[in-house]
Amino acid sequence: MADPKKRFECVALAGRHATPGIGEPLLRLANFLQRRGLTVLLEAETARHASFPGFRSATLAEFGRCADVAIVVGGDGTMLSIARQVAPFDIPVIGVNQGRLGFLTDVPLSEMEAAIGAMLDGRYVEEKRTLLDTQIAGGRAFALNDVVVNRGIGGSMIEYRVEIDGRFVYAMRADGLIVATPTGSTAYALSAGGPIIAPEVPALALVPVAPHALTHRPVAVHESAVIAITIQRGPDASVHCDGQSRFPLNEGGCVTIRRAEHGARFLHPENHDYFAMLRSKLHWSATPERLAGGGE
Amino acid sequence: MADPKKRFECVALAGRHATPGIGEPLLRLANFLQRRGLTVLLEAETARHASFPGFRSATLAEFGRCADVAIVVGGDGTMLSIARQVAPFDIPVIGVNQGRLGFLTDVPLSEMEAAIGAMLDGRYVEEKRTLLDTQIAGGRAFALNDVVVNRGIGGSMIEYRVEIDGRFVYAMRADGLIVATPTGSTAYALSAGGPIIAPEVPALALVPVAPHALTHRPVAVHESAVIAITIQRGPDASVHCDGQSRFPLNEGGCVTIRRAEHGARFLHPENHDYFAMLRSKLHWSATPERLAGGGE
Amino acid sequence: MADPKKRFECVALAGRHATPGIGEPLLRLANFLQRRGLTVLLEAETARHASFPGFRSATLAEFGRCADVAIVVGGDGTMLSIARQVAPFDIPVIGVNQGRLGFLTDVPLSEMEAAIGAMLDGRYVEEKRTLLDTQIAGGRAFALNDVVVNRGIGGSMIEYRVEIDGRFVYAMRADGLIVATPTGSTAYALSAGGPIIAPEVPALALVPVAPHALTHRPVAVHESAVIAITIQRGPDASVHCDGQSRFPLNEGGCVTIRRAEHGARFLHPENHDYFAMLRSKLHWSATPERLAGGGE
Amino acid sequence: MADPKKRFECVALAGRHATPGIGEPLLRLANFLQRRGLTVLLEAETARHASFPGFRSATLAEFGRCADVAIVVGGDGTMLSIARQVAPFDIPVIGVNQGRLGFLTDVPLSEMEAAIGAMLDGRYVEEKRTLLDTQIAGGRAFALNDVVVNRGIGGSMIEYRVEIDGRFVYAMRADGLIVATPTGSTAYALSAGGPIIAPEVPALALVPVAPHALTHRPVAVHESAVIAITIQRGPDASVHCDGQSRFPLNEGGCVTIRRAEHGARFLHPENHDYFAMLRSKLHWSATPERLAGGGE
Repeated sequence: MADPKKRFECVALAGRHATPGIGEPLLRLANFLQRRGLTVLLEAETARHASFPGFRSATLAEFGRCADVAIVVGGDGTMLSIARQVAPFDIPVIGVNQGRLGFLTDVPLSEMEAAIGAMLDGRYVEEKRTLLDTQIAGGRAFALNDVVVNRGIGGSMIEYRVEIDGRFVYAMRADGLIVATPTGSTAYALSAGGPIIAPEVPALALVPVAPHALTHRPVAVHESAVIAITIQRGPDASVHCDGQSRFPLNEGGCVTIRRAEHGARFLHPENHDYFAMLRSKLHWSATPERLAGGGE
Repeated sequence: MADPKKRFECVALAGRHATPGIGEPLLRLANFLQRRGLTVLLEAETARHASFPGFRSATLAEFGRCADVAIVVGGDGTMLSIARQVAPFDIPVIGVNQGRLGFLTDVPLSEMEAAIGAMLDGRYVEEKRTLLDTQIAGGRAFALNDVVVNRGIGGSMIEYRVEIDGRFVYAMRADGLIVATPTGSTAYALSAGGPIIAPEVPALALVPVAPHALTHRPVAVHESAVIAITIQRGPDASVHCDGQSRFPLNEGGCVTIRRAEHGARFLHPENHDYFAMLRSKLHWSATPERLAGGGE
Repeated sequence: MADPKKRFECVALAGRHATPGIGEPLLRLANFLQRRGLTVLLEAETARHASFPGFRSATLAEFGRCADVAIVVGGDGTMLSIARQVAPFDIPVIGVNQGRLGFLTDVPLSEMEAAIGAMLDGRYVEEKRTLLDTQIAGGRAFALNDVVVNRGIGGSMIEYRVEIDGRFVYAMRADGLIVATPTGSTAYALSAGGPIIAPEVPALALVPVAPHALTHRPVAVHESAVIAITIQRGPDASVHCDGQSRFPLNEGGCVTIRRAEHGARFLHPENHDYFAMLRSKLHWSATPERLAGGGE
Repeated sequence: MADPKKRFECVALAGRHATPGIGEPLLRLANFLQRRGLTVLLEAETARHASFPGFRSATLAEFGRCADVAIVVGGDGTMLSIARQVAPFDIPVIGVNQGRLGFLTDVPLSEMEAAIGAMLDGRYVEEKRTLLDTQIAGGRAFALNDVVVNRGIGGSMIEYRVEIDGRFVYAMRADGLIVATPTGSTAYALSAGGPIIAPEVPALALVPVAPHALTHRPVAVHESAVIAITIQRGPDASVHCDGQSRFPLNEGGCVTIRRAEHGARFLHPENHDYFAMLRSKLHWSATPERLAGGGE
């Protein structure tokens, strides 16, 4: 729960550049914030795509020195992107969704001023989300959803070996392997048969995609686990972080995944309800029509 | 496809007794059929629950000597029940649904006269559905959906052994075993992880409930298979046919399941579309909101 | 990791009564412990089934005042039973398996003296396992594996409603619902499609059995969650704790599950490896023969 | 069952070229067949890799005019390859496995002469397996296991639309889609969650890989279905037939899959048992150690 004494004074704003018309709600929000006496910074890339006379723009790095909170107008993808970047600065993020509510962006555009006003007054709940730090020969990247090892396009499975904290866990032939945070447990990992992990559980799910081994079941390990995945066989494998950064992973190559030093901080309206979001977004547990002949 | 020359002359009507107000649509339908010059018989049990002046009632056995088609007003459960009973007489069945359309009852009450009129004129498609003949020490019963071997209430799994055509298939510790027809593949078997089997596939699905063996996967075998299930261990097991008839099955006891000599015949309006029904009833393959961060 | 200075002085011994020949290894172990200068107490029920001249017997309640550690000779079931009972006294438990190693009983009988000697010398690892405290109109019971709400034998599903910390989570029609600890995640919950949860993850898995809702996926919630399950529809439902204690649960009745005040403490030999145990016991992730045509 | 009067007079032999030492068993087999008075043809490609003095070689096309049966020494992959090629000539195939028995190659090398001798005497069972005919802008190919539509390496799902016999079935966002024969139902489709389909069931399974829609379940349709898959969104998609032939599939592109005019014919020793093979190869339904605490 929020500490009511904490005051937000400088707000960073970012939007989804590619969306036509994104300038209008951002400007509306900037004016609203300014009227409340707050300092407003526009994320430099966002500022390049629209006209915001009278507002300063700043790079994400500059945010770090000044902003107390970031507000993102866009969808979950934009939210993930900004949250990954401001995490090292320990800046919390609020998400405003232009269209339908997202998993992460839970302030509707239509109620933006009222909802954000209340949140700036301290009526919010804060959620800490684990960020993954991925290290590989070709580089390093962060992920809030998942790190995925994928086979190439040759059409044959890859074989990989998983170690946790230096201990052998399993070797597998599969299409891939997903290492998902609780945040990512409702994304790609869910399609591949993984469990939903509530955000407050400090765990990572290891979910193979189309595993060859019939006895395999996804496993949730503690988020402090250091996970090393080595490609034993298979050309053209690659690693994706949040479906964005991509690194090639050759036979014999290894990727190491650990919890990042900093996590992401999300602020939600006070009535935030994780399970309601699951039901709304995934139709989770919705019962279809009574099955054939069942019960009549 | 229907032979356009086949004429329906005598129609049997049955309804779901327990439903208040079922008499009105049945009487409306009876009058409609009579105006078309057809002979109308009311299923005796249905007739006992409502007043149908001027119409003859007949037992299901009597239907067999006279009726060319049976029309059921109710839900899938009533449809299954009547279809099981008239199957030996080779009488096709039409289903009218009072509420939302069912898997089997696909004529909406609101369009009943127009739809049935067209079908009586020969504009229908016929579907043959396999009926299962279940033999067990305690008796014999038929099933259109499934035959289920269940554990008792003691809370421990049962162990059973499956043979097909006299050959050992597998032994399993589980909560139960479902033998489902294509009709039943969208009912209980689907909840237990079985595949959907389209009605024109001559197969039965064997789907264990909560199987102890991690390597198990459901199997579809030819519908001509004679399936014998023996309880090897477990008190209070029982066998259900279509969730209705129930027989105890003791340790060492065996139930044998084979395709019945006669199948059920369902008539559908010409625009019947199995996959549309799946999509509508099960929300089959409906894509929820874009998963978190997926693609933005 | 063990504090090397902690000394075990009084050891409680328990065995699986029903097993013929259990007396011999127990007596051998008692003598071994006595020769090391330890005080040995025999669990009273165990002592009634075999002759242990020269050793004192004590009830589990008496253990609480004296014993520093309990050693169980039997299988996982005996281990669960003793561990549930000594948990309130904060006594750690060591498991010796008579037959094949268990999930919990990981000291082989054949190496009993050497392994236990080393552990008494402080070369062990300790694992804390969550215990569930189940409250229901008919009573109260503890569970180390799982609390299961089951349908009755009528053959129809039950409908239940799940709340966590007073918030609605979902309503479901299913055969049952399993609330599993990490310990229980490799038991019944695994058969029902639940994830494996490593012991160090503070989570509980909610796994429906044969859920009617196709969109359902198991969820892992924090172990501090207070889970309330209400039967909305369905006769003869019941609640099982660790497959042992059974309580009826009527329509409208509710069972509440929360983490017990005390957890169980298991001691393992120093080379204990959770994932090795999974691979050995479940054949977890073992790759079968190369699938048809795959790669040759 | 075999018609005992049918005589095999000309036998085609093929082996897995890449395997060192494959020449020896092939030559042994060729001599064995020659001693029985049969004409022996060596598949030309095989003949190029080893020395077979005194035996004629022939292309697969030439086999068509002469051979009564083909014998393959290798693994399931070689068997699939030869079977696809001789199917149009209606030549049955026998599989000898060098290593462990395969799904399709069920004559062990060590008993080759005795087993094949018996089969040539008419003591065999014949199995017909469906072959898929895949048509796409870039070409045409046949498959005995499966036709797979795959996403590219960009890391994002593809969106495709499935039609059967001209009717819309579903649209899906997923990693891919597998259309599997009963033969292929124990290969890749099984890893992706598909059902096992016994060879005598005239069905094809449609199994998405990591489908985005939680309500999706695999479906088995009649093998006479004409299946059209159109890529609606996604770069770099491709189509694989039996994991071999590969065709690019652009956005808007369509692949059509139908049962080929000719199927493959496999000959098995008389004691062939499909379910025994499943148990042996997949450890199908093997029960692991009793799960934790499950009844002791």
